[in-house]
Amino acid sequence: MSAAIRKTIDINSDLGESFGAWRMGDDAALLAVVSSANIACGFHAGDPDIMRRTVALAIEHGVAIGAHVSLPDLQGFGRREIPVTPAEAYAITLYQVGALHGFAQAAGTRLHHVKPHGALYNMAARDRRLADGIAQAIRDFDPTLCLFGLANSALVDAGREAGLPVAAEAFADRRYRSDGSLQPRREADAVITESDEAIAQAMAMVREGRVRAVDGDIVELQADTLCVHGDGAHAVAFARQLRASLEAADIGIHAPGQRA
Amino acid sequence: MSAAIRKTIDINSDLGESFGAWRMGDDAALLAVVSSANIACGFHAGDPDIMRRTVALAIEHGVAIGAHVSLPDLQGFGRREIPVTPAEAYAITLYQVGALHGFAQAAGTRLHHVKPHGALYNMAARDRRLADGIAQAIRDFDPTLCLFGLANSALVDAGREAGLPVAAEAFADRRYRSDGSLQPRREADAVITESDEAIAQAMAMVREGRVRAVDGDIVELQADTLCVHGDGAHAVAFARQLRASLEAADIGIHAPGQRA
Amino acid sequence: MSAAIRKTIDINSDLGESFGAWRMGDDAALLAVVSSANIACGFHAGDPDIMRRTVALAIEHGVAIGAHVSLPDLQGFGRREIPVTPAEAYAITLYQVGALHGFAQAAGTRLHHVKPHGALYNMAARDRRLADGIAQAIRDFDPTLCLFGLANSALVDAGREAGLPVAAEAFADRRYRSDGSLQPRREADAVITESDEAIAQAMAMVREGRVRAVDGDIVELQADTLCVHGDGAHAVAFARQLRASLEAADIGIHAPGQRA
Amino acid sequence: MSAAIRKTIDINSDLGESFGAWRMGDDAALLAVVSSANIACGFHAGDPDIMRRTVALAIEHGVAIGAHVSLPDLQGFGRREIPVTPAEAYAITLYQVGALHGFAQAAGTRLHHVKPHGALYNMAARDRRLADGIAQAIRDFDPTLCLFGLANSALVDAGREAGLPVAAEAFADRRYRSDGSLQPRREADAVITESDEAIAQAMAMVREGRVRAVDGDIVELQADTLCVHGDGAHAVAFARQLRASLEAADIGIHAPGQRA
Repeated sequence: MSAAIRKTIDINSDLGESFGAWRMGDDAALLAVVSSANIACGFHAGDPDIMRRTVALAIEHGVAIGAHVSLPDLQGFGRREIPVTPAEAYAITLYQVGALHGFAQAAGTRLHHVKPHGALYNMAARDRRLADGIAQAIRDFDPTLCLFGLANSALVDAGREAGLPVAAEAFADRRYRSDGSLQPRREADAVITESDEAIAQAMAMVREGRVRAVDGDIVELQADTLCVHGDGAHAVAFARQLRASLEAADIGIHAPGQRA
Repeated sequence: MSAAIRKTIDINSDLGESFGAWRMGDDAALLAVVSSANIACGFHAGDPDIMRRTVALAIEHGVAIGAHVSLPDLQGFGRREIPVTPAEAYAITLYQVGALHGFAQAAGTRLHHVKPHGALYNMAARDRRLADGIAQAIRDFDPTLCLFGLANSALVDAGREAGLPVAAEAFADRRYRSDGSLQPRREADAVITESDEAIAQAMAMVREGRVRAVDGDIVELQADTLCVHGDGAHAVAFARQLRASLEAADIGIHAPGQRA
Repeated sequence: MSAAIRKTIDINSDLGESFGAWRMGDDAALLAVVSSANIACGFHAGDPDIMRRTVALAIEHGVAIGAHVSLPDLQGFGRREIPVTPAEAYAITLYQVGALHGFAQAAGTRLHHVKPHGALYNMAARDRRLADGIAQAIRDFDPTLCLFGLANSALVDAGREAGLPVAAEAFADRRYRSDGSLQPRREADAVITESDEAIAQAMAMVREGRVRAVDGDIVELQADTLCVHGDGAHAVAFARQLRASLEAADIGIHAPGQRA
Repeated sequence: MSAAIRKTIDINSDLGESFGAWRMGDDAALLAVVSSANIACGFHAGDPDIMRRTVALAIEHGVAIGAHVSLPDLQGFGRREIPVTPAEAYAITLYQVGALHGFAQAAGTRLHHVKPHGALYNMAARDRRLADGIAQAIRDFDPTLCLFGLANSALVDAGREAGLPVAAEAFADRRYRSDGSLQPRREADAVITESDEAIAQAMAMVREGRVRAVDGDIVELQADTLCVHGDGAHAVAFARQLRASLEAADIGIHAPGQRA
């Protein structure tokens, strides 16, 4: 008599990406869908007031709070690959994780994870020394924090070696290459634009741990968390559709490490 | 046969006020003199790399580490009175205290205190609601942190009411009015330029708890910490002279709450 | 047989107030309505790319281009009253006017006017020395540039004394006090929320040179330019309604000094 | 009976690189030595006040004024290679050239040249499309401005093709490779640390139009301007020594295009 273990997955989204008088995304709507919130820490978006409010909103929705750490680049929204040394990556990670921790602690809760943003995420996915700088900052601050990184990347490797809990991230709407890496955005077929196809890819990832690559190969891809976007006309609708599809397949939706 | 309680005082200084390629102050020399370091948190000076190095240096010298929180104003060095609401003061305090805590925690130590910088210090000295915003942020983050504020100011009142340990700060080289407030800098006699006179004022504050005001009155002034400056030709020499004078009078030099 | 002189008025709006990845306002829609565009210069909003595109868009629509100069405060959107000296106001005005001139010159056109933004506008409306700093910067750069300032303010006085062409600005949707100044925003009745009432006020200003103050007095108010907002749900609709009402009354709509 | 044409060279230096409360370099001392000043425009250093003062100081010394345009990176002092498109390079060049022009124009003078700074200089030296973006911005603003770029680089090629006057820049204290490019800073022998050797290299460049490369080859190198640094213990002394050596050899020292 054996009980099947119920499959679970995390849904994460980038939140708190307004800045000063400028608004971005529909945080309240997304917080009703996701299980993890990556909150901007003032380097690519967010400011102290917005961080305080976003932390409060995430707590209200019972969503796990993570620091969405970035290169210092408000004008470029953290999307420009500014060269930084591993020591600099260590320091900017610590600064931002600490800053968000301030708001979490004051609100009576704890950080759950750290996810590098934009260019820092991409650079750390391929540059192991940079990834080590980030992972060491997290470990030195709090080794129970989960590191979110691209599945099959240097960043998740660095996190595992640092002894951190790690969540491999996959994208419902991005195409993969047969080595398990993302098809670069410069390629025409990098993004899946049909919702149904994206949902189907996500379901295959979660249920079978595999994805069909752009060249047709079937690739192993163990995803712990799926990223949904907060911006764009259909972002919230797609996130809801994804959650409904997962629930319909009896897949549990929880932040990594918080499975009931 | 009674044992006299040895008088003690703290000497604090603002440190880590370089930024990027620009240098300011001689932090290493000052750390050999002071018992408390107020470390810039990136809003008026400092950046993640500099914060990491300054925290390491303070630990080496056994000096208590505090967050020197500021209005967000690199160009104005935090000296311009930018209007902020109490809620904004709460958020910028929490952000900066958290950020510096990140470096302290990763280096295996704890923050000891928080001292507002420049315009925020002055605004909070006279505006109780702003002072409450700052004090509440500190209390919500860690109620054991000591709040450094101008002696006889709204800031120390706010700290006490919030239940925080408070250190009343006095200045060896600033003149006082008969109500215990500082003679404003716009007055010609605001600053004591003779080292010997400044040392004499500091000694009177520490030994007798009083200071001679600009109008000749003798004013009660209970100082827990004396501020020494890091910049300027004679800053380090003066700080050393002050320390030597205090030690010669058998006054213990410790961070508040850390008296042996 | 005498020819009546046709009345004319300028309609201006603040444009180019996006920043990096953040959008604000519907510039293209407003440029079809206004005769003058105040373009953000990077201090409260705007960045070099946005400035280049906004200048090109204004040229396409045949709208007069002005520099919307601000205190340096992206996070506060230029709305916080940061204390600056007249010399600092001179320098920040010159910097921003020069920067926008760069784009105008490269695109084969000239700047037409300068309008201080937000807190700088308000501070210069009441502080003559600050206003003089701004006016002198404009005069030293190009004395044919028109200075836009609040009607009946120190800023228009400073512009006139500096020998600049000056445009007195009035607001369709703000209430006035009997001394011709704006009812402060902290008052409940500061803003006219009914479109029809705002249109009626604008028409009275333009046709009769007067406005009914909050206390019922009729106040003289010679307006050369009316400000319409770019942000908010009904902003563009209101701007169109205002323009249509003015045109229906046979009032010419031209930038100051550009009456055909 | 033939009249020999007197050889001339320009000496340029980067100036106005203080920021807010932070000081850098001894501008007044250098302005007594150089013939061209590259003035920071607020993106890597400088602020409106400092720009105004530096322009005034350059005018006092009769030194040609150039815009030292940079990537937007105060924290990295413009030394980090932030990826920008040619269109972005166009816009940031125009913005900064315009801003400095504002101060020059108000002070009754004109800009003489433009020199990209740091990472932008290096990127434009090797990336022709980026160099074209910069050159086109200068040409669209004022085609009489001289473009300073590394000798034998894509930047001087772009300037020439845009029809700009171009000054090829060489370094007394940097070693060259046999293809005429600079020995990269990561190489141990990139910098000449002996003053006498640096002076000798500069003299050979100016008098013979050649330099001995790191591999011993003699390389053609037509330099129009020599860069001297403003920072470091011996910077001013070296600049004076260089000027004295050139004058002793009867070489005229003038900004490009300003030979008497």
